[in-house]
Amino acid sequence: MSGLRRPRVGHIEFLNCLPIYWGLMRSGALIDVDLTRDTPVALNDRLVAGELDIAPISLVEYLRHADDLLLLPGPAVGSDGPVLSVNIVHERPLTELDGARVALGSASRTGVLLARMLLADHYGIDATYFSCAPDVPQMLRKADAAVVIGDVALRALYEAPEQGLTVTDLGEQWKAWTGLPMVFAVWAVRREFAAAHPGQVKDVHDALTRSVSLCLDELDIVAASAARWEPFDAATLAGYFRTLDFSLGERQLTGLREFAARAAALGEAPPLAVGGPLLFEG
Amino acid sequence: MSGLRRPRVGHIEFLNCLPIYWGLMRSGALIDVDLTRDTPVALNDRLVAGELDIAPISLVEYLRHADDLLLLPGPAVGSDGPVLSVNIVHERPLTELDGARVALGSASRTGVLLARMLLADHYGIDATYFSCAPDVPQMLRKADAAVVIGDVALRALYEAPEQGLTVTDLGEQWKAWTGLPMVFAVWAVRREFAAAHPGQVKDVHDALTRSVSLCLDELDIVAASAARWEPFDAATLAGYFRTLDFSLGERQLTGLREFAARAAALGEAPPLAVGGPLLFEG
Repeated sequence: MSGLRRPRVGHIEFLNCLPIYWGLMRSGALIDVDLTRDTPVALNDRLVAGELDIAPISLVEYLRHADDLLLLPGPAVGSDGPVLSVNIVHERPLTELDGARVALGSASRTGVLLARMLLADHYGIDATYFSCAPDVPQMLRKADAAVVIGDVALRALYEAPEQGLTVTDLGEQWKAWTGLPMVFAVWAVRREFAAAHPGQVKDVHDALTRSVSLCLDELDIVAASAARWEPFDAATLAGYFRTLDFSLGERQLTGLREFAARAAALGEAPPLAVGGPLLFEG
Repeated sequence: MSGLRRPRVGHIEFLNCLPIYWGLMRSGALIDVDLTRDTPVALNDRLVAGELDIAPISLVEYLRHADDLLLLPGPAVGSDGPVLSVNIVHERPLTELDGARVALGSASRTGVLLARMLLADHYGIDATYFSCAPDVPQMLRKADAAVVIGDVALRALYEAPEQGLTVTDLGEQWKAWTGLPMVFAVWAVRREFAAAHPGQVKDVHDALTRSVSLCLDELDIVAASAARWEPFDAATLAGYFRTLDFSLGERQLTGLREFAARAAALGEAPPLAVGGPLLFEG
């Protein structure tokens, strides 16, 4: 007989996290968490505000709030090459975009920062950036390039070519630039919660780990199920899920540190502590 | 490739519906619905307002809005005898409560109406009713009897005796009075939604049916899992889940019609249409 409070866990309502939801559901672990499903930005804010105990968080937001958080040693949302769903959509080649206007159609802070890093530091492009709703045709009426993330970006990948537009995959670009995997989101726990309830955090981490493994086994079923409701067919979804890298091993951590160093150099986040990131160790 | 909207389905966040959630989760059906978890009253209101397509609804609220709704031919939340979680808590015998003040600690409209029916029509008791927060000790400071529902009522069942209080089970009383099962909540679909999307409604109904059957097979696991977080041990929870009647067969429909007739006689709901209730027939 307990009466404990279930840990408050965030879940991203994008396709990229559907495999993790599937695993939590099929394993029965969903019953042991108080799950909040929301957009990445809303979850970032709620974790930082202490309204959630454990949640996925955009990498750059984690870096900004690393003092209050510990990283779970997995899962993560990243890619070791193309990610398919973090894209710049443009008409002219990227190399001709100096002085251009770039519409940022997403509040996904890591993807947007990566786009700016690549354009400025890799392509040497001085552009003007502005935020707007993530609607590619609308964005390109007001800008020369559009940065989009998530389900909208995945759709653009399939629709843009027939509109004469080029799609640049930011995961692929990062890999070409640095040779490393890119990590877009990590799972973090509030330090005070981890100190008070290490057993619960370990259970959630174990459940997430099992969920990833379980969903990878059933990926074609997940894809067929999701295809009933999403504007993508099962093969596209299965390909997308297989492209994503849900792991957070040494290579991914090296990619994460590289991004952190570049973000810090731009003044976008404090530098990662020496030996960081600090991981939760159940 | 579809892009259909998932049906918006309500789920009661009380222990009595945990077995159904478990079944939806374990079967994978959860991925095919846009699930809103909330209190019974909030779900009632959202279904009636058209913000949900399919949801559990308190029987009396269904009767009040039967023109807009079709009943799913199961599941339901009821009991054929004691229900354990719809209770009157009192110090003096019920027969001595004439002229008493009765606190209604719940917005569960069917349980509250059943309590008033029983006291007035079965016991011939003229009482004064008022609503308040569902806290038994507080309620009994201001009243001679307290009507409580759900998890609070289940707890009162175990705690009241040591406080010298009597717990009267309203499911048991109804059975003794009428010889019939009591149905507290039913699942209903908005008629316009059923007309537009009969296949989706059939799928949700099938998923709910499978969920009930799956959870009955795994009831001890559900109970052990829930006991981690709830103020009840696994054996108590398993006993509670086994006491509940999730079916909506002929006997349950007879009980439902009997309650509807009595509610109509009291002016609490319009009479059920002849041959009613109208069921969804996939």
